[in-house]
Amino acid sequence: MKEGRKPVRVAMLGRGTVGAQVMRLLDSQADDLAARVGAPIELAGVAVRRPNRHPDVPSHLLTTDAEALVRSDVDIVVEVVGGIEPVRGLLVTALRSGKSVVTANKALLAEHAADLFAAAESAGADLYFEAAVAGAIPLVRPLRESLAGDRINRVMGIVNGTTNFILSAMDATGASYAETLDEAARLGYAEADPTADVDGYDAASKAAILASIAFHTRVTAADVYREGIAAVTPADIAAAKTLGRTIKLLAICERIHDSVAVRVHPAMIPRTHPLASVGGAYNAVFVEADAAGSLMFYGQGAGGAPTASAVLGDLVAVARNKVSGGRGPGESSYAELSVQPIAQVNTRYHVSLDVADRAGVLSSVASVFADHDVSIAAVSQQGRGTDASLVIVTHSAPDEALRSTVDKVAGMPSVHEVASVMRVEGE
Amino acid sequence: MKEGRKPVRVAMLGRGTVGAQVMRLLDSQADDLAARVGAPIELAGVAVRRPNRHPDVPSHLLTTDAEALVRSDVDIVVEVVGGIEPVRGLLVTALRSGKSVVTANKALLAEHAADLFAAAESAGADLYFEAAVAGAIPLVRPLRESLAGDRINRVMGIVNGTTNFILSAMDATGASYAETLDEAARLGYAEADPTADVDGYDAASKAAILASIAFHTRVTAADVYREGIAAVTPADIAAAKTLGRTIKLLAICERIHDSVAVRVHPAMIPRTHPLASVGGAYNAVFVEADAAGSLMFYGQGAGGAPTASAVLGDLVAVARNKVSGGRGPGESSYAELSVQPIAQVNTRYHVSLDVADRAGVLSSVASVFADHDVSIAAVSQQGRGTDASLVIVTHSAPDEALRSTVDKVAGMPSVHEVASVMRVEGE
Repeated sequence: MKEGRKPVRVAMLGRGTVGAQVMRLLDSQADDLAARVGAPIELAGVAVRRPNRHPDVPSHLLTTDAEALVRSDVDIVVEVVGGIEPVRGLLVTALRSGKSVVTANKALLAEHAADLFAAAESAGADLYFEAAVAGAIPLVRPLRESLAGDRINRVMGIVNGTTNFILSAMDATGASYAETLDEAARLGYAEADPTADVDGYDAASKAAILASIAFHTRVTAADVYREGIAAVTPADIAAAKTLGRTIKLLAICERIHDSVAVRVHPAMIPRTHPLASVGGAYNAVFVEADAAGSLMFYGQGAGGAPTASAVLGDLVAVARNKVSGGRGPGESSYAELSVQPIAQVNTRYHVSLDVADRAGVLSSVASVFADHDVSIAAVSQQGRGTDASLVIVTHSAPDEALRSTVDKVAGMPSVHEVASVMRVEGE
Repeated sequence: MKEGRKPVRVAMLGRGTVGAQVMRLLDSQADDLAARVGAPIELAGVAVRRPNRHPDVPSHLLTTDAEALVRSDVDIVVEVVGGIEPVRGLLVTALRSGKSVVTANKALLAEHAADLFAAAESAGADLYFEAAVAGAIPLVRPLRESLAGDRINRVMGIVNGTTNFILSAMDATGASYAETLDEAARLGYAEADPTADVDGYDAASKAAILASIAFHTRVTAADVYREGIAAVTPADIAAAKTLGRTIKLLAICERIHDSVAVRVHPAMIPRTHPLASVGGAYNAVFVEADAAGSLMFYGQGAGGAPTASAVLGDLVAVARNKVSGGRGPGESSYAELSVQPIAQVNTRYHVSLDVADRAGVLSSVASVFADHDVSIAAVSQQGRGTDASLVIVTHSAPDEALRSTVDKVAGMPSVHEVASVMRVEGE
């Protein structure tokens, strides 16, 4: 550590669970951080809505005027508030005046990355956001930097802990989605309003960010095909089990020639797949690149301390850049790839049907698949008196062809019920 | 990509498997790399020993005079030769003249990192070495940068593919080490002279590098306690199986108060441990940090293309730094922790003994453990006529106490043979 070096001044916006952990680490690791940065890091102020809720923070640090704090003499703005406005405006102001920004705000980045990067570019400031995707797991830096000399083809992972907890529990107990969600809320694994998690919005934001940096193109949350887990039934779980599979909410980013496809939906994966054993609130992401082959990253995807670890790593990097005069990577969107709608993306379906147990039913169902150019990979039929259970797993085909096939099959008189339809991944 | 930007000129030392892949990627990805760097990357020359062995390389690029190439008008030196001299001298020359260096040379970094970093520091040059540890797996950058705001306590992993292939095969077939090594050589998984791999030198170099960057201190290969896999017997493998364990060659870097302990040795781990399922030539590394919790990184640890991916990622980073005027992280060794010898490190032992099957033997063996203050975690005895098999798993204790205990037990008249002694990790 260089003695007497001018401190790097940091403004913090927000002080919830993550913010409190960031403050704790800034304090407990102060000497180490100074040694790694080459100058001490000084907390200049913390903008909060209700100062009286933070009695443990020295009062001279607290302010309700985030705008004034951002415009004051600080070098770096750390944002752990969340939400779009007023944060977007504050961060654009900060970046335009040359202040570097470290943010954990996935929703903001998934919608307004272009604005933020443009503001950063205009003033030569840094924009870092490791904490916005998969908490403590280093993922943004490996994709933006480690694999910058490679061509990434696919990113697939579990990036939402709440839904992973719920699906793991449904798999273990056989209970319904509604019961399991209640249990998750009781245990603190689901928010009072779980919409962002269970409907896949959180995962879609992360998928948009991952796709943007992996494929050097702009992908926003609106470009992401999204299905949540609310429609997953005990029958789906049971069907998956029968086939040696389990159900996970996956974020999948694919490069297909000169376009990208980004989707979030529940999918059956084999129980032997490395993602199958990712339980509870953990996250894990697979990356496939031309030269590097398959890589996997695993760790805690949320929580105050893990997220704060990612924020601090970014803070050290941008503070080092301030001290050394360098800059981190800016937006890389030169590839300008188009986004392929889910209808055209090749997927595979698992379909469980309750059908009449009589001659000719299998052949008539199979002919519907054939009519839609959907090739069947595996089929099993089990009689149960007058009914039979018919399970079909397809080869890959355009998603719209698979959907039309299922719609058509559902309307057949010999098909009593479509018990489960689920995409299949990871084989 | 900014048109007309002055190219970044790269000298390459060596052109073996990795070098050829680096050249391939430089060519096939030229436009993408230029867009990511902000300037084209131009290969200025390739130093090789025998130019006639590289008929596919334009002859004006080839030279046998590495020294002249390094001293010529280049911005970056990429080293994929390996070995200590003359490479060390060449890279110090390059760094001292302000040329940044990207190297895949683990042996060099594990012995001479201090020299290299000092040379880099003197001229403000970058020294990057992601490819030196675990091939394509981003590990150096996450440890040096992503976790720079956290405190790392432990790094444990499988970092050598050859030994992992051999141990996986021994586990699957029950064959001896010698037979399996022959098979690995036939299949191309072991070198003609496998010493560096099977005796743990390669893993020890990587462990030294990982410990240095994880704990911000200087650790060289000589500081690493090292045992290879040549002494692993089918009896060890069988004993591990009986207990639901498998044997892996692990590199373990621990921070213990104000010292570090770094070791490479075979160890039994539970078959349910994530590292147990890392098969064949794959690598995987666990990292435990205060705030981030447990992280795992998994991928291909060797091979031309994966290693070249890591080299290219570093090359893009240092080229960007050249263009933007910034610098990557330098050596971080401020912590100056001492290295704890293996004798004092707490480990756990599994011991399988063939003992006389008569009253009092268990109690006399157990008393030897007690005399050395070694607490027993689990014991099982199985009679086989006049003999009995006695398996003891200890709690953790200083390694020297465990060794003395085993030595003492081995000399007891009632102990016919020490069938297997192996450290236990991961529980």
